[in-house]
Amino acid sequence: MTPLGPAATLGILGGGQLGRMLALEAGRLGFDVHVYCPEADSPAARVAARETVGGWDEEARLAAFAEACEVVTYEFENVPVAAAQAIERAGTPLRPGVASLENSQDRLVEKGFLNRIGIETVAYRAVETRDDLGGALAELGGAAILKRRREGYDGKGQARLSGPADADAAWAVAGGAPCILEALCPFEREVSVIAARGADGAVAVWDPSENDHEGGVLRTARAPARIGDGTAQAARAACLRLIQQLDHVGVLALEFFVTPDGGVLANEFAPRVHNSGHWTPEACLTGQFEQHIRAIAGWPLRSTERVFDAEMTNYLGDAACALPGAAPSGASITLYGKRESAPGRKMAHTVSVKPR
Amino acid sequence: MTPLGPAATLGILGGGQLGRMLALEAGRLGFDVHVYCPEADSPAARVAARETVGGWDEEARLAAFAEACEVVTYEFENVPVAAAQAIERAGTPLRPGVASLENSQDRLVEKGFLNRIGIETVAYRAVETRDDLGGALAELGGAAILKRRREGYDGKGQARLSGPADADAAWAVAGGAPCILEALCPFEREVSVIAARGADGAVAVWDPSENDHEGGVLRTARAPARIGDGTAQAARAACLRLIQQLDHVGVLALEFFVTPDGGVLANEFAPRVHNSGHWTPEACLTGQFEQHIRAIAGWPLRSTERVFDAEMTNYLGDAACALPGAAPSGASITLYGKRESAPGRKMAHTVSVKPR
Repeated sequence: MTPLGPAATLGILGGGQLGRMLALEAGRLGFDVHVYCPEADSPAARVAARETVGGWDEEARLAAFAEACEVVTYEFENVPVAAAQAIERAGTPLRPGVASLENSQDRLVEKGFLNRIGIETVAYRAVETRDDLGGALAELGGAAILKRRREGYDGKGQARLSGPADADAAWAVAGGAPCILEALCPFEREVSVIAARGADGAVAVWDPSENDHEGGVLRTARAPARIGDGTAQAARAACLRLIQQLDHVGVLALEFFVTPDGGVLANEFAPRVHNSGHWTPEACLTGQFEQHIRAIAGWPLRSTERVFDAEMTNYLGDAACALPGAAPSGASITLYGKRESAPGRKMAHTVSVKPR
Repeated sequence: MTPLGPAATLGILGGGQLGRMLALEAGRLGFDVHVYCPEADSPAARVAARETVGGWDEEARLAAFAEACEVVTYEFENVPVAAAQAIERAGTPLRPGVASLENSQDRLVEKGFLNRIGIETVAYRAVETRDDLGGALAELGGAAILKRRREGYDGKGQARLSGPADADAAWAVAGGAPCILEALCPFEREVSVIAARGADGAVAVWDPSENDHEGGVLRTARAPARIGDGTAQAARAACLRLIQQLDHVGVLALEFFVTPDGGVLANEFAPRVHNSGHWTPEACLTGQFEQHIRAIAGWPLRSTERVFDAEMTNYLGDAACALPGAAPSGASITLYGKRESAPGRKMAHTVSVKPR
């Protein structure tokens, strides 16, 4: 495709902080951004040239939005597939495509897809009903995590089971929705790899980061990860295989458990820029937001070389209020422009860098 | 002052590329931006939450704009002083203040101010009428540059005189406006220093850059400049003296001629972020756009430490069209989102960095 030129319009489905950071980089590269979001006055819309407020089921509105854009992307993986198809039907390229959504929205489909393309995950079982749970738990060794197949994020809708006695409580947490039961993985650490693929098929991958979660929410991401070269290479290779198999255009993140023997088991992927890659703009020649915009605009990718060691810290809820007046330090601050704080809500992040 | 917090609104007077780059950094720091500009659909307005289209003489509109902002700044130095005063009368802090405009809009006032605070410039004479020109030229040694006192930029409204025979042509170029005649300065190179001053009076200064102009327009800026430590120190000290004497809050740029003996003569200053500082975001821990936003928002300044050697190149007119498809290189690209290209119009810049 011809690279999109100055003042072309890029559409973003979704209006959260990832959309905001994408829109800011799109602006730096000279583009106009048009945000489609069910809520008015979203963080992304407030840095965009245009905003359409509309539901995911409003096909005519989605089509009009698509017609006003040269290319459309999405900032979260729960955009309904029907909405994504409405964009494509309007004749506007959707990047990444529908396959990246279809294979990441449902945890059971996701793990099946990963396994099918040769990327190892923890063992798992489908759990459609409460009755399935007992047998599945036994098959996975008596301890496991029950997760809703769809729409869970940041640990929501998940419950850990140490034995059959926990089954009723876990099923209640999942809310009766179709579930996946995942074997517990005795892991040493969690890492993720972010990769990008251009419209021309070229790929680029960042160094793995080591991620710490609390209560299911990412708190810090550090690069380099404390893993051996073989582990890093295996994680990178799996991420590149995934992005190619999906024919994905744009940025994608794949999360892994690192086992005590240095092996990697894929946990889940996000077909978009990712919280665990928020250190990349400050620490690498090219950050994930710029690279995503370059990819969907048909520009060549730039180098992902990491020039600093980096640590990214998330700020949740009112913890972000102290950042504006904080004493100067090396840390770079990014605030998400959210008008309302809430406990556990991601409000900001900081990135500290130091020479490698 | 209390540091402005998440989703506060910052106003920017002016809608060009400097306003756009300021707005993008304000967005990253969590702010809403409101742009006031005589032209609709300006590059800055298209990355801002709000836009007011209005003239510089519309006091009621300026007051309403100011009342919708927690603080107001300007992205170019030719905002009329009366417009700036209208902002202050509305009770909204204007940062930098009116003094920084008053002392930079008129080349005669500017040089007088610089000399008065102990910053040396080339010799100059006021030229009010054609009749003044002959005597002034003789006093300055027979060769000089005639410049309009107001509203010239990028070499516009300027003419070089090698002797009395050039006087009529030069006066015609200046268009009969009040002028300043400046002695020719035999310089080795041109450098500039960018500094920032916080609302708390703290200052920060970047390394000098070495600047190349063609036809009066900046083409490249390089850091480090090829100057000795003493020269760099003198330039930095002059810039810091200026920013303090103006009680300036925000970023400011001072341009110098470096004489063959390593001395510095100030040429002019801009009370704003500056084209010759466009390398700072890529090459320093903190760039000029972020620092300006931090200063006007009452945040502490961050480190200006330069971590890379850098070269910034301006792209004028259609030269920018090739950037989107350019083969990947280390260079970071910033496009200004201008809808129309014109010969000599600044459309984009690139920054290349390498380890120091």
